[in-house]
Amino acid sequence: MKLNRKSFLILLSTLTFGSLAIGKTMEKKKPKLSHHVFFWLKNPTSKEDRDKLIAGLRKLEKIETIRSLQIGVPADTEKRPVVDNSYGVSELMFFDDVKGQNVYQEHPLHKKFVEDCSSLWEKVIVYDSVDV
Amino acid sequence: MKLNRKSFLILLSTLTFGSLAIGKTMEKKKPKLSHHVFFWLKNPTSKEDRDKLIAGLRKLEKIETIRSLQIGVPADTEKRPVVDNSYGVSELMFFDDVKGQNVYQEHPLHKKFVEDCSSLWEKVIVYDSVDV
Repeated sequence: MKLNRKSFLILLSTLTFGSLAIGKTMEKKKPKLSHHVFFWLKNPTSKEDRDKLIAGLRKLEKIETIRSLQIGVPADTEKRPVVDNSYGVSELMFFDDVKGQNVYQEHPLHKKFVEDCSSLWEKVIVYDSVDV
Repeated sequence: MKLNRKSFLILLSTLTFGSLAIGKTMEKKKPKLSHHVFFWLKNPTSKEDRDKLIAGLRKLEKIETIRSLQIGVPADTEKRPVVDNSYGVSELMFFDDVKGQNVYQEHPLHKKFVEDCSSLWEKVIVYDSVDV
C-alpha cells in the first residue's frame, strides 16, 4: 500500500478527529434518572461516623445499573435562607431509567449497605428526578 | 511513504483506540460542585406555570461556568416514606468550584431568570455538595 505525505496526513486527521468525535458522542449520552440522597447523621460531629458512611457508599459503585456515583458533603457556598447545608453526606447517582434504579434498590450490595450503615443516620431525604 | 498491510492496521488501531482513550479521559474529568435546586410551584397543577419555569431554566445554560445542566420533574420511582416527590421542577447544575457558582449567582442571565420566574414558585430548597 502506498501513501504519499498528503494522503497520510488526511488519513491521520480523519482517524484522530473522527474517533474524538465518537468519544464526545459517548460522553454526551447522559442517563435520564438522577437519585439524590441526603443523610443527616446521628452524631453529626463524628468524623469517624461520616467516614464510615462514605466508605459504605463507595462500595455501591459496583452495582451494574449505576451510571455514575458522586459522594459529597455540604459545599462552602454562600449561606442563604434557601440553602440547606444541615445534612452530613450526600449521594448522587444516575440511572438510565426507573428499571435501573429498581435493580439497585433490590441489589444485595445495597441491602448490605443499609444493614451496615443505617445505624449511622437519623434522617434521609431522597429526590428522584427524570430529565425533561 | 510506504506502508504494508500489517503496519497500516497497527497504525489504524493505535490512532483509533488512542483517540478513544483521550475522549474517555476527557469524559472522566468531572466537575466537583453540584448545585441541586427543587422548586415547589404556587400552582402545582398548572402545566403552563411548570413549562414557563422549565423554559426559564433552559436559558441559564448559556452561563459560562455551568459545566452541565439537567432539568427534571419527579421520577416515577417507588413511593417510599423517605422519597420527597412533592416538588414541581428540579434543576441540577455542576460547577468546577465555588468560584464558578459565584459567577453564576451574580450573572445577569440568572438575575433575569429570578425576576421573570420567581412569581411562579412558593418554596425553593437548594443543596450544594462538593465531591469527597
